[in-house]
Amino acid sequence: MSRGRTATVLTTTFEDGTSRRHPDELAVEEPLTIRLDDHLVATTMRTPGHDFELAVGFCFTDGLLGGAIVRACRYCATGSAVDTAFNVVSVDTGGQAPVPTARLGVTSSSCGLCGSTTIDELADRLEALGPTPPIALEILAGMADRVRIDQTVFEATGAVHAAAAFDALGTPLVVREDVGRHNAVDKVVGRLLLDDRLPATGLGLYVSGRASFELVQKAWAAGFAALVSVSAPTSLAVATAERAGLVLAGFVRGARINLYSSPA
Amino acid sequence: MSRGRTATVLTTTFEDGTSRRHPDELAVEEPLTIRLDDHLVATTMRTPGHDFELAVGFCFTDGLLGGAIVRACRYCATGSAVDTAFNVVSVDTGGQAPVPTARLGVTSSSCGLCGSTTIDELADRLEALGPTPPIALEILAGMADRVRIDQTVFEATGAVHAAAAFDALGTPLVVREDVGRHNAVDKVVGRLLLDDRLPATGLGLYVSGRASFELVQKAWAAGFAALVSVSAPTSLAVATAERAGLVLAGFVRGARINLYSSPA
Repeated sequence: MSRGRTATVLTTTFEDGTSRRHPDELAVEEPLTIRLDDHLVATTMRTPGHDFELAVGFCFTDGLLGGAIVRACRYCATGSAVDTAFNVVSVDTGGQAPVPTARLGVTSSSCGLCGSTTIDELADRLEALGPTPPIALEILAGMADRVRIDQTVFEATGAVHAAAAFDALGTPLVVREDVGRHNAVDKVVGRLLLDDRLPATGLGLYVSGRASFELVQKAWAAGFAALVSVSAPTSLAVATAERAGLVLAGFVRGARINLYSSPA
Repeated sequence: MSRGRTATVLTTTFEDGTSRRHPDELAVEEPLTIRLDDHLVATTMRTPGHDFELAVGFCFTDGLLGGAIVRACRYCATGSAVDTAFNVVSVDTGGQAPVPTARLGVTSSSCGLCGSTTIDELADRLEALGPTPPIALEILAGMADRVRIDQTVFEATGAVHAAAAFDALGTPLVVREDVGRHNAVDKVVGRLLLDDRLPATGLGLYVSGRASFELVQKAWAAGFAALVSVSAPTSLAVATAERAGLVLAGFVRGARINLYSSPA
């Protein structure tokens, strides 16, 4: 089985003209194939753990469920070896979800795509977020420290991203780690969905690193009130957050925080 | 047209109980649709600039060219608006490249995929790298500083990744920036291909951030002798580098560097 989230390798460190060989803990990266009602949906490179949440969250934030209810998740048991049976997850809606179509790339295949049309396509699928009581900026600025305590894989390896859902008091409700930021977010969203906690009205989403268009898309799809990232957003992330009615904050440095989008 | 790599937005910074509104420069993120001989290949979110290199590099590192020679690159001009015509690039091999097939996710659709089978699939497509004179560890450890001077978008925004090809003396030959690390690497590889400089025998590849499986795959496909990343690799990246015969170094901290794979 290959279920560990970290693996130990022998590494040589060179410093000041000397070298020493020592064990080093690295983040594990393994492919996860996601199926929806036995249709192949995607294969993503992820850190093992919380695989059902990842599969469900991916299907949800990518708009593949189409409002269908998730009845069950299971590992594929038809692989020839035990260690690969845990790298395929099937999400079961009893055939209620639309049949996924093969897509190339992250968005539509129309010629003449631009950032604005990409946002337009999202807006066709997602409703603008309604007004909610704003989460205090001091709370948003403090999330990096509050989430850090639960970043156990990062603590061991220094090399994975984290995402967290948190309430208006800044209490982390779900913290997930992964080599991919998008996977960490999907795991958080998947957990909320399985807990019947979506849309995430009034909750904030924290992500380590930068805020890309894709992360804003996922936060919007899940109905979060705010997205806060440690580093900067892209210009398209800001434009998308404004369209969504999503608070977008970032570049947290101690008690300093930048507000890029504030619909309230 | 939407060709800028940075965009200025109005941002509010909160600090010590005060707020100030000021212009802030952000990295631009726009979709780029890549076509190969007029077949749709992928849409990737990227920072505009060096689009031909990105398209060519993507097709090459993804194994889509199948040995075919790139005859030309062009922007799609059939879009209805001028600003979107620069978000579609066609790579032309005169029909010599195999027709790309719609794929779901990053790897094969076989049930029972694991890290080892993923590496096996790569090894079927790519030859093990031959021995080359090793690049000195001091050179590898110094690359972050040497590349930093050319990271103009990072300097302005603090939010894009960089990749660079460098020679055995540590001289950066090509430096490219992008919101996506994989895109930055594809731009570097695409430039080398267009300069008829592939395989990149004897050259090193530098990437900011972490080294994932995908980046090792791209370095292997391009024939680099070494891959050095600022942060840690994943365990699968190490296993893949060992299979490829690729030097993999990382976690550069001043003059300290970790060596994870050293085939020599």
